[in-house]
Amino acid sequence: MKFKVLKKSKKSRARLGVIETKNGVMETPAFFPVATKACLKTLDSTDLANIGFEGVLCNTYHLMLQPTSAVIKKHGGLHKFMNYNGVIATDSGGFQVFSLGKGLSQGVGKVVGKVANKKEREKVKQPSLVKIRENGVYFQSHIDGSTHFLTPEKSIKIQQELGADIIFAFDECSSPLDNKKQTKRAMERTHTWAQKCLIAFKDKKASVNKRQGLFGIVQGGKYKDLRQKSAGVIGKMDFDGFGIGGSFGEAYGDLKKNMLNVLDYTIPLLHEEKPRHLLGIGYLEDFEKTIKKGIDLFDCVHPTRMARHGVAFTSQGKLNLQKSIFLKDKLPLDKKCSCSTCQNYSRAYITHLFRTGEITAMRLLTIHNLWFFKTFMKNIRKKIKQDKL
Amino acid sequence: MKFKVLKKSKKSRARLGVIETKNGVMETPAFFPVATKACLKTLDSTDLANIGFEGVLCNTYHLMLQPTSAVIKKHGGLHKFMNYNGVIATDSGGFQVFSLGKGLSQGVGKVVGKVANKKEREKVKQPSLVKIRENGVYFQSHIDGSTHFLTPEKSIKIQQELGADIIFAFDECSSPLDNKKQTKRAMERTHTWAQKCLIAFKDKKASVNKRQGLFGIVQGGKYKDLRQKSAGVIGKMDFDGFGIGGSFGEAYGDLKKNMLNVLDYTIPLLHEEKPRHLLGIGYLEDFEKTIKKGIDLFDCVHPTRMARHGVAFTSQGKLNLQKSIFLKDKLPLDKKCSCSTCQNYSRAYITHLFRTGEITAMRLLTIHNLWFFKTFMKNIRKKIKQDKL
Repeated sequence: MKFKVLKKSKKSRARLGVIETKNGVMETPAFFPVATKACLKTLDSTDLANIGFEGVLCNTYHLMLQPTSAVIKKHGGLHKFMNYNGVIATDSGGFQVFSLGKGLSQGVGKVVGKVANKKEREKVKQPSLVKIRENGVYFQSHIDGSTHFLTPEKSIKIQQELGADIIFAFDECSSPLDNKKQTKRAMERTHTWAQKCLIAFKDKKASVNKRQGLFGIVQGGKYKDLRQKSAGVIGKMDFDGFGIGGSFGEAYGDLKKNMLNVLDYTIPLLHEEKPRHLLGIGYLEDFEKTIKKGIDLFDCVHPTRMARHGVAFTSQGKLNLQKSIFLKDKLPLDKKCSCSTCQNYSRAYITHLFRTGEITAMRLLTIHNLWFFKTFMKNIRKKIKQDKL
Repeated sequence: MKFKVLKKSKKSRARLGVIETKNGVMETPAFFPVATKACLKTLDSTDLANIGFEGVLCNTYHLMLQPTSAVIKKHGGLHKFMNYNGVIATDSGGFQVFSLGKGLSQGVGKVVGKVANKKEREKVKQPSLVKIRENGVYFQSHIDGSTHFLTPEKSIKIQQELGADIIFAFDECSSPLDNKKQTKRAMERTHTWAQKCLIAFKDKKASVNKRQGLFGIVQGGKYKDLRQKSAGVIGKMDFDGFGIGGSFGEAYGDLKKNMLNVLDYTIPLLHEEKPRHLLGIGYLEDFEKTIKKGIDLFDCVHPTRMARHGVAFTSQGKLNLQKSIFLKDKLPLDKKCSCSTCQNYSRAYITHLFRTGEITAMRLLTIHNLWFFKTFMKNIRKKIKQDKL
C-alpha cells in the first residue's frame, strides 16, 4: 500500500491524496462503507462497482467467527471471496473489545443504539461478552457462546489471511465512561499491542496480500495529555498509516463534542506523509470539520443502516420513506441525484415497498445513500482542490 | 393484447406463440415469476430486465390492500409504478378466495405450505378470512383485519386501474377437499361471475391500459364432467385467453396427479387461437408434460421462494446452499449457467451469506433461479421448434 499527498489546502490541514494498493486506487479524503461480514448489506460487489465505491471495510471479529479467516484464505482472500476489485480495509477486532464489553455492560455500545443519558443506559445494559487480559482479549461469541482469545499476533495473522489492503493494529478501544486511570491503562495496553502487531506483521507467512499496509491506532479517550502521549508513541512507530480510535458516536455526548479537540492534539504528532483514518465516523456533518483537521479516511455503518431503516439522505435533508405521505409522491428521492434508484423509481414506489416489508426497499435506499455519500466526498475533494476548504 | 400461434408441434399439442402487448412482447410457452406486491422479492425491475424476463404476474388482492389500485392508477399504472417495461399480468383475487378461505380453514392452502395428509392438516388449520356470497366475496384483510367485499365488477375495475396487459376474471377457486356438490356450486358461481366480468370489462372508464386482454378461468376441480362443462361454458365466452384454475399444488395429492387428465378434458374445448395459462404452476417437472397438453403460460412463486430458502436449481439438480459443506466449494452454483450470480460468486460465498443472515444471499439465488427457469423455458421452445416435444 502506498499513500501520496497530492495537494494541501491553503486554508486548513485538509489535503488531497491517493492510496494505491494491489487491488485498486482510492482518492482521499474517502469514506469506506462497512461490509461487516464480507458483504455490504443488501448489495453485492457488482453494485459497489456500479455505485463507484473505491473501498469497503470489513470486520475481522465477525469474519473470524464466520466463515473464519482460514476459509477465506483458501478462497484466495477477501477480494476473491467477495469478488471485489477495490480497496478493502479490515479493522482489528479492537472496537469489539469495547462494543461487546463495556459497550454492553455500561449500556453505551453502538450495538444498543443511541443512548445518551444514565437512565436510558440502565435500561439497555447487558452482560459483557469480553474479558481483557494483558496479552489479549477473551470474547464470548454472540453467535454460539464459544470463547475466542484474540491477541495482537492473532489479529494480525487473521488479517493477513483475510488479505485486505489496509489492516489495523489490535487495540483496546476504551469506553467514554472510563475514568482517566482506566483510559490510561487501555492506552498503554494499546501501545504494547501495537509493537507486538508490528513484529507479527513482518512475518508474512500467513499473508495472502504481500502489499498490505498496517495502520496503528491512537487512543487516549477524551484526555488531552493521554491523546498527545498516544499520538507521540504510535506516531513514532513504523506504521503505514494511523487510525484515530475512540467511541465518538453521538451516543456519548461529551466525547463527540470533544472529537475536534482530540484531532487538534493528535494530528500534528502524526507523520505528515501517512494517511489518517478517523475510525467509525461518520455523519455528514462530521466530514468537513474533521477533514479540515487533517483526516483522510472514514468508515461508518451510518448511510447503510439508515437506508435499512427507511431514511434517505438528499440535497434537501433526510427523508423518512416509511411515511405514508410519500405514497402520493411521484418525485425521485432526490431530483439532483443520478443514482440508479433515483433514475428508476419514485418515492411512492419505495415507500410502498417499505410499508409492505419488501427487502428491495432497503436495497434501493442503500444504493441511493451510498451514492449520496460518494458524491458528498467527491465534492469535498473538489473544494480542497480549489482551496475552498 | 394479441396472441399468435407461430408453430404447432408434430408430436403433441405443444405450440410456439407470441403475445404482443402495449408494453412488450413475450414468446410462449412462457413462465411468469410472481411479483405479488408489484415487486419481485429481493429484486427490482432493472434486475428483471437484466435476467431477461419478459413478464411478471402481480396479485390484485395484495395490491388492492396496499397501496390500493387508486394509488397505482395515479402513478400511471403498474408498469410506471414498478418501472417495468415488460408484460404484466394480474390475477383476479379468485385464488385468495381459496387460499385465505378453505386454504386456511381446511389446512390445505399454499399459505401454510406443503400439507398432504389429514393429521398434518389438522395442525395448521386457521380460521377462514373469507365469506363467499352469490355476488362476491368478503375478505378480512390479513394486514389490519378490515373487511373488503370483492365482486366480479370490482375485481375488473381494480385490474383496469392497475393497468396490467393480461388480467383475469374473478373466479372461485375451490378446495381439493370439496365434494362434487361444493365444487359444482363454485364452478357455477365462476361462470356467472365470468359473464359479469366480461360486461364490466367493456366499460373502459377505469382503464389505464386500453389494450388489456381479459382471460376467463375454467374451474371444476378433479371432476371430469365438471371440467368439461366449465371449459365448454367459459370457452364459448368472448375472452382473450383462458386460465385453467384449481389447487394443483403438490400439497393436494390426488389433484396434482389428476392435473394432466384435467388438461386432457379441458384444452380441446378451448379456442385454438387463444392462449392458455395454467394458474399457479409450476415445478420444473410440470412444464414439459403440461405444454405437451397445450399449455402456453405459467406463473408460480416456486423459483423465487425456493431461492429465499437457500435452494438453487442447477443442471445437476437442486442444491441447498444453507449447508456448511458448501463453504469449501469454489465452484459457481452451476458451471453451465451464465447468470450474473454464477459469473461472479462461488457456492462458498453464497453459503457464507446465507449462514450469516445476509439478505444479499436471497437476492443472488433469486437471480440464479430465475435465470435457470428462463433458460429452461427457452430450451422447451427450442424443442417445440424442432418438433422434439
